[in-house]
Amino acid sequence: MPHWPTTPLTERFGLRYPIIQAPMASAATAELAAAVANAGGLGSYGFAMTPVDRLADEIAAIRRLTNQPVNFNFFCHAPPVPDPERDQQMADRLAPLYAAFDLSPPAGPAAAPYPTFSEAHLEILLPALPTIVSFQFGLPPRFHIEALKAAGAFIIGTATTVEEAVWLVEHGADVICAQGFEAGGHRGTFLRDPAASEIGTLALVPQVVDAVRCPVIAAGGIMDGRGIAAALMLGAAAVQMGTAFLGCPEAKVQPLHRRALHAGTDTRLTKAYSGRSARGIANRLIETLAAHEAEIPDFPLQQHFSRPLNAASALRGSTECLQMWAGQGAPLLRERPAAELLKMLAHEAAALLA
Amino acid sequence: MPHWPTTPLTERFGLRYPIIQAPMASAATAELAAAVANAGGLGSYGFAMTPVDRLADEIAAIRRLTNQPVNFNFFCHAPPVPDPERDQQMADRLAPLYAAFDLSPPAGPAAAPYPTFSEAHLEILLPALPTIVSFQFGLPPRFHIEALKAAGAFIIGTATTVEEAVWLVEHGADVICAQGFEAGGHRGTFLRDPAASEIGTLALVPQVVDAVRCPVIAAGGIMDGRGIAAALMLGAAAVQMGTAFLGCPEAKVQPLHRRALHAGTDTRLTKAYSGRSARGIANRLIETLAAHEAEIPDFPLQQHFSRPLNAASALRGSTECLQMWAGQGAPLLRERPAAELLKMLAHEAAALLA
Repeated sequence: MPHWPTTPLTERFGLRYPIIQAPMASAATAELAAAVANAGGLGSYGFAMTPVDRLADEIAAIRRLTNQPVNFNFFCHAPPVPDPERDQQMADRLAPLYAAFDLSPPAGPAAAPYPTFSEAHLEILLPALPTIVSFQFGLPPRFHIEALKAAGAFIIGTATTVEEAVWLVEHGADVICAQGFEAGGHRGTFLRDPAASEIGTLALVPQVVDAVRCPVIAAGGIMDGRGIAAALMLGAAAVQMGTAFLGCPEAKVQPLHRRALHAGTDTRLTKAYSGRSARGIANRLIETLAAHEAEIPDFPLQQHFSRPLNAASALRGSTECLQMWAGQGAPLLRERPAAELLKMLAHEAAALLA
Repeated sequence: MPHWPTTPLTERFGLRYPIIQAPMASAATAELAAAVANAGGLGSYGFAMTPVDRLADEIAAIRRLTNQPVNFNFFCHAPPVPDPERDQQMADRLAPLYAAFDLSPPAGPAAAPYPTFSEAHLEILLPALPTIVSFQFGLPPRFHIEALKAAGAFIIGTATTVEEAVWLVEHGADVICAQGFEAGGHRGTFLRDPAASEIGTLALVPQVVDAVRCPVIAAGGIMDGRGIAAALMLGAAAVQMGTAFLGCPEAKVQPLHRRALHAGTDTRLTKAYSGRSARGIANRLIETLAAHEAEIPDFPLQQHFSRPLNAASALRGSTECLQMWAGQGAPLLRERPAAELLKMLAHEAAALLA
């Protein structure tokens, strides 16, 4: 085992390595989170797409596989505002793609495929005594945060700007995950226009470190020991890596998606899949909507329109409409079991830091 | 003096520290380049806006101030294609801004305010026996490169993607400057659509290091010892810092611009000033053209329209149309003489790397 200096987060979370596997609601599994946790990193699980009545079962599934702390992640976005006219406009806009995949156009008003974090979640979460709970898109109301803390949880908030980091600490976050522009999947931006919140990891992390007193996690573009060592130099107390774990057999990733990651030099920020800015590999769906982002229904209503295309694309073995979240470091992907990858990352970083 | 490990570039260029002050044609001065060079870094001077008949004098001015190597930087863009109809469209689009600053609308067809690198430059440059010559926007023809190398110069090319880095090495570059998304001023992008070439420094540098055999300079978002140490961990042989040197009294920077850097949390990529993507602090001119980038005249013809607004803005003490290039690390700016700043940066990085 490589020797690691402790950081405020390795101590606080009882980790061997300051390496966090990102929650990635669409790709994370209990197996992935547990493999990382058991190997000395911090495993995470994204519950954003979990129906509330499945929450207890999924927590139990993780705990059957590990007795180490796991980071439970939730979305706490503002509920979307229905807009049937905009829905119709999107259906019209995507009609040629639906036709190309022999799909009938999406019917009825768009419905949110999953809810925002609520008291219903809290009622199940609190008795489970979570150790670490993280949120995307801001934080839930103060009394939720207080209840989670009273139950013994540390709270991680996700910031894409210094302003968001300061807001999160003021609203109860114990730890800030500073998510740079390079990151794959959804951007955590919640205070401002996404275009004013696209800051590279190398520029963002030291500014967040200077602005808050709590430990800071660096996320975005980190794929190997070089990125980990760099993040620690920037002042981060740990790194969070998502794309890097998409090469693990424990992750739930379409083979087409995994193949595209290796060549993934052209990633884009897009609202095409969910209605919220997220980074994925450029394809026909993303390009179709690139000039029409302002028309896209509120997060997560746009999933009503993108999901059938994603499913049909996967079925046909096409990447044209496949949701392929990827960070800008994707071509550095290595396919390894999670425990082996974690050890390799730790060795690489330790060698550079020695 | 802090102890520094040598890197392939400190050895090749005879530097005490692997720190390069970026050329910054609009802000660099002979005094800045010489101060950095004399203090043990690599000073640079951007000749992009220098008329050919002033080139010899400006080189002489630098050499009067230092006998250390200085990096001479040139633009080698494709000459712009005149388009009177597009010029008129831009004049119309900017009419309200011209009116706001009591300016008469720009007359006549747009003329390029400075030429691309050519044999005329080469004829003056070669007898001056330059040590290091760097280029933006690709490279000049092969025989220019060969002539410079035969005269003893090392060639630095600027890449914003892995593909560009490979292209530059194939076309004669000895060293690659990997310019991340965070960087202020012009992006070096020359092969593809800028939107497909916006990669954060932390993700870009290790991928470029893996793709080429030559030394790689990291640029973009580096403002202090933390950024320098991080870049070296990523595999860079040196760092290039532009914005960080805008706080030096030796730099040619409008006081309004310098003040804006300290608060510069909202920077944007824009073609509004020159016709080519560059990062600056958001203001009225940038916002006016944000949704009309496709209409903007070719680089550098757009300067015909932006320069009067920039000058009037400066005169009136307004930032509304002021050209304020800035990287995403701008708020970390420190105002110090260049030699003092360089020593401070070296100390900070050395302490982290110790």
